[in-house]
Amino acid sequence: MSRKLHLNAFLMSVGHHEASWRLPESDPHASWNVKHFQELARIAERGKLDSIFFADSPVLQGDPGRRPAGKLEPTVLLTALAAVTEHIGLIATASTSYNEPYNLARRFASVDHVSGGRAGWNIVTTAGADAARNFGLDDVPLHADRYERAAEFVEVATKLWDSWADDAVLADKEAGVHADAAKVRAINHRGRYFRVDGPLNVPRSPQGYPLLVQAGSSEDGRQFAARFAEAVFTAQQTLGEAQDFYRDLKQRAAALGRDPDGVKILPGIVPVIGDTVGEARELDAELERLISPEYAKRQLAERFNLDPDDLDLDGPLPADLPTEDEIEGAKSRYTLIVDLARRENLTVRQLIGRLGGGRGHRTFAGTPVQVADTIEEWFGSGAADGFNIMPAVLPSGLVAFVEKVVPILRERGLFRAEYTGTTLREHYGLPRPANRLELSKV
Amino acid sequence: MSRKLHLNAFLMSVGHHEASWRLPESDPHASWNVKHFQELARIAERGKLDSIFFADSPVLQGDPGRRPAGKLEPTVLLTALAAVTEHIGLIATASTSYNEPYNLARRFASVDHVSGGRAGWNIVTTAGADAARNFGLDDVPLHADRYERAAEFVEVATKLWDSWADDAVLADKEAGVHADAAKVRAINHRGRYFRVDGPLNVPRSPQGYPLLVQAGSSEDGRQFAARFAEAVFTAQQTLGEAQDFYRDLKQRAAALGRDPDGVKILPGIVPVIGDTVGEARELDAELERLISPEYAKRQLAERFNLDPDDLDLDGPLPADLPTEDEIEGAKSRYTLIVDLARRENLTVRQLIGRLGGGRGHRTFAGTPVQVADTIEEWFGSGAADGFNIMPAVLPSGLVAFVEKVVPILRERGLFRAEYTGTTLREHYGLPRPANRLELSKV
Ligand SMILES: Cc1cc2nc3c(=O)[nH]c(=O)nc-3n(C[C@H](O)[C@H](O)[C@H](O)COP(=O)(O)O)c2cc1C
Ligand SMILES: Cc1cc2nc3c(=O)[nH]c(=O)nc-3n(C[C@H](O)[C@H](O)[C@H](O)COP(=O)(O)O)c2cc1C
Repeated sequence: MSRKLHLNAFLMSVGHHEASWRLPESDPHASWNVKHFQELARIAERGKLDSIFFADSPVLQGDPGRRPAGKLEPTVLLTALAAVTEHIGLIATASTSYNEPYNLARRFASVDHVSGGRAGWNIVTTAGADAARNFGLDDVPLHADRYERAAEFVEVATKLWDSWADDAVLADKEAGVHADAAKVRAINHRGRYFRVDGPLNVPRSPQGYPLLVQAGSSEDGRQFAARFAEAVFTAQQTLGEAQDFYRDLKQRAAALGRDPDGVKILPGIVPVIGDTVGEARELDAELERLISPEYAKRQLAERFNLDPDDLDLDGPLPADLPTEDEIEGAKSRYTLIVDLARRENLTVRQLIGRLGGGRGHRTFAGTPVQVADTIEEWFGSGAADGFNIMPAVLPSGLVAFVEKVVPILRERGLFRAEYTGTTLREHYGLPRPANRLELSKV
Repeated sequence: MSRKLHLNAFLMSVGHHEASWRLPESDPHASWNVKHFQELARIAERGKLDSIFFADSPVLQGDPGRRPAGKLEPTVLLTALAAVTEHIGLIATASTSYNEPYNLARRFASVDHVSGGRAGWNIVTTAGADAARNFGLDDVPLHADRYERAAEFVEVATKLWDSWADDAVLADKEAGVHADAAKVRAINHRGRYFRVDGPLNVPRSPQGYPLLVQAGSSEDGRQFAARFAEAVFTAQQTLGEAQDFYRDLKQRAAALGRDPDGVKILPGIVPVIGDTVGEARELDAELERLISPEYAKRQLAERFNLDPDDLDLDGPLPADLPTEDEIEGAKSRYTLIVDLARRENLTVRQLIGRLGGGRGHRTFAGTPVQVADTIEEWFGSGAADGFNIMPAVLPSGLVAFVEKVVPILRERGLFRAEYTGTTLREHYGLPRPANRLELSKV
C-alpha cells in the first residue's frame, strides 16, 4: 500500500484570516453558534478528512474590537460535533499549565467514549502573561517549567487512562459483581507538580488514550513532541525549513526509541483557492485590504515586547529585537516571524499583511491544481506526512478545498476515497496504546 | 395563574437503586453509553419535565465491584444531550473545591450557548478525602473553608459571566469593529482564594448565567443556598422535616433580601411505581434482595468513620456515633441517616435496604395515583416547589413516571401540558439575571 496523506482541518471562527468576518458572506456571530461548526464538521467529513481541530487558550486573545475574539470551550464544542458526525476525528486544545490532570484526563476520556473513539488532545503549555493572570499568577511560568509540568501532566493522564484494565468490567449480574476491583487500580502518582491517587472515574475509552497532538516548535517543544506526540502541527514557511524540521523531529523520536512513523508531522497551509490564479490573488488582496493596520501593529508590538510606537508601518522591523532566548512566550513562532520579515525585506505593513492570513503559517494563493501540487511536493520530499488545512474564510474556503482540491489528491492516489476505520487513531494509522498498568502487573 | 410544580429527573446509570443493574432489563454497560442517556433525555422531554440532572464527584465513588461506578464527565454528557433535545433543561454538577473558576465559568457559558440557554450548574463543595487525593491534597479541606471558597468561586464566575455586556458585539463590518471593546471588561478579582483578571473569552450566554443549583443542607450549605441558589435539591424523609427545611430556607433567602419565590425547593423522591400496590412492593422487594450487604456495610462504615466490623448487620447502629460537628464530609446527609435509623429502630441490614434505593432520599412504592397524591400533598403544604425524581430503575422507572404519574399531575392542573419557554430559567419561572458590570458602569 502506498503512503497516504493525512488531512486535518484547523477551524477557527469564520476563517483564519483576521478580516474574514468582514466579507459579505460571513456571519460575524458564527463564532458562538454551534450550528456553524456543525456545518463545518459535516463538510470536512464529506471530504473524508482525518480530523478537525480547534486551537484554544484560557484567556480572551486579541482585541475583541478587531475580530471575533471569544471561543466556545473546545471539549464542549467537540462533543456537540460528535453528535452530528460519525467518522471524523475531533481534536481539542487544552493547556497543561492551567488544568488539573484528573479533570482533563477524565474529560478527554469522556469525549472519547461519547464520540466512539474520535477524540484527540492538542497539548499546549500556553504562552502569555494574560492567561496566567486568570489563574492566580502574576506572570507566565518560565518556558522550561511549563514544559516540565506538561511532561508530568501527560504522564499522570496516561496513568489515569490506564487505571482501568480494558477487561475490568465483568457485569456479572448473577454473582452481583460489576467490575473486577483488582483491575481498577490506584495510580498513586507523586511528582514535582502533581499528587494524584486515582483511579480515574471512567473506564478505559475506545482509543485507550485520545490521540496526543502537539504544536510547539522550540527546542523544549520539539523534545516534548518527540517523547509524547503522535501528531505534530507546525508552522513552516519554506520547503527547506519544513524538511529540516521533519528530519529533526523524526530523528529525535527515533533517538528516544520510538518508531518515527508513529509521529505524523503536519505543517499548516492557508490555501486561498480560485478557479484561476487571478481569482485567487484577488481574494487574497481583498482580505488584505480589510485588515486594520493599527490593531495589527499593536498585536505585533506585544509579541516583540515593544511599544506600538516603536514600529513604523512603512519601515522595516527594528534592528535590535530580542533573541528567542529572551522570549518567554511562543518562542518558535517569534523566530519564524522575524526570519520571514528579514528574509523578504518586508515593511511592518507588508508583514502584517502576510501574517493576517496565517499568523506565520504558509499562505498559498492559487488554483486547485496548484494547491494539490504544493501538497504533493511537500508530502513527497520529506517535509510532511500530511497537512493542517487552515482556510482563510469559512465555510467557503473549506468547501473549496473539499470539493476542488481533495478530488485531485484522491485521483493521484494520495488520499483516501472512504474511511476505512472508525477511530481517529485508525484514520492516522496509529495503534491503540497497550495498557501499561496491566503490563506492569505481570 | 395557579402555582405550577417543577419536575427534575435526577438520572444515574441504570437507576438510583444500587442493585438496579442486576435486573434482567438493565444494560450493565449503559453508564458509559451516551445513547442510553440520550434515550433518557428524550423520555424526560416527552414528559415536558423542567430539567434533567447529573450528580458528580471528581473521584471514583463507591466500590466498582458493587455497582457501575464510573461516570462520564457531566458537562460533556449534557452537551451530547443538548444535541438531541430542544427544550429540556440540562443540569450538571461541578465542584468548587477542585476546579478553577475561569475554566468552569467558561465551560458552563459554552454549554449554555450550545444548548440555546438550557444549562444549569449544581454547585457542590465535594465531601471526602479520596477526591482531595486526586488534587494534590492529603485530606479534604475543612467544611467551612470549602463553603467559603465556594462563595468566592461563584462570585468570580458571575463576574466573568457579566464581563461581556449583552450588547457588546457590534459586528460592524463597514467600520471593521467587531465588538465595542469598552463593553468587554476585565474583572480584576482579588480575593482570598482567587485572583482572576478576565474578561471571559466567551460572550454572555443566552441565560446570562446558567441556573444556579445547590444541594447541601448543613448550616453552611443552607446559608450558601439562601445566598446564591435558584433551585435547591434536598433529601427529606418526612413531611414535617421537609416543611421545616422549606420554611427555613425561604426565610434565610428573604433575610438576605431575596424574593423567596426565586429559590425553588425540590426534595428528592424515589418512586417505585406499580399498577397495583402489590406490584410496586414486589419491585421494591426484588431490588432489596439484590443488594450485596457486605459491600453496603463497608460503605456505611466509611460514612460513619467506623471499621466495617463495628457494624452488626442484624443489630442497631452503635450508640456512640460521632455528632454532625465531627463530620467533615457530607454533614446533613449523615444526620439524616442516623435519625432515620433511630426513628424507625432499623437494624443495619434494614437501614441498608432503605438506603439502597435512595441513599437517604424518600423511597415511595405505590400506584401512579398514590405517587401523584404524595407529590400533591407535599407541594400543597409548604414542603416543596417541585420534586427531584430519582427513578430506582432506568429507563423503565422514568417511563413509568412520565407515562403514568405526569398525566395525573397534568389533569389536576399541577403541571404543564406544553413548554411555554425555551430556556431552563423560563421553565422554572426565574428571571434572566441583569448584567452587574453594566449596572456598575452608570
Ligand atoms: C497549528 C498550531 C496550532 C497551535 N495551537 C495552539 C493553541 O491552540 N493554543 C496554544 O496555546 N498554542 C498553540 N500553538 C502554539 C504552540 O502550541 C506553542 O504554544 C507555541 O508554538 C510556543 O511553543 P514553543 O515556544 O515551543 O514554540 C499552536 C501552534 C501551531 C503550529
Ligand atoms: C439531590 C442531591 C444531589 C447531590 N449531588 C451531589 C453531587 O453530585 N456531588 C456532590 O459532591 N454532592 C452532592 N450532593 C451533596 C451535597 O451537595 C453536599 O455535598 C452534601 O450534602 C454535604 O453538604 P452539607 O454538608 O452542606 O450537607 C447532593 C445532595 C442532594 C440532596
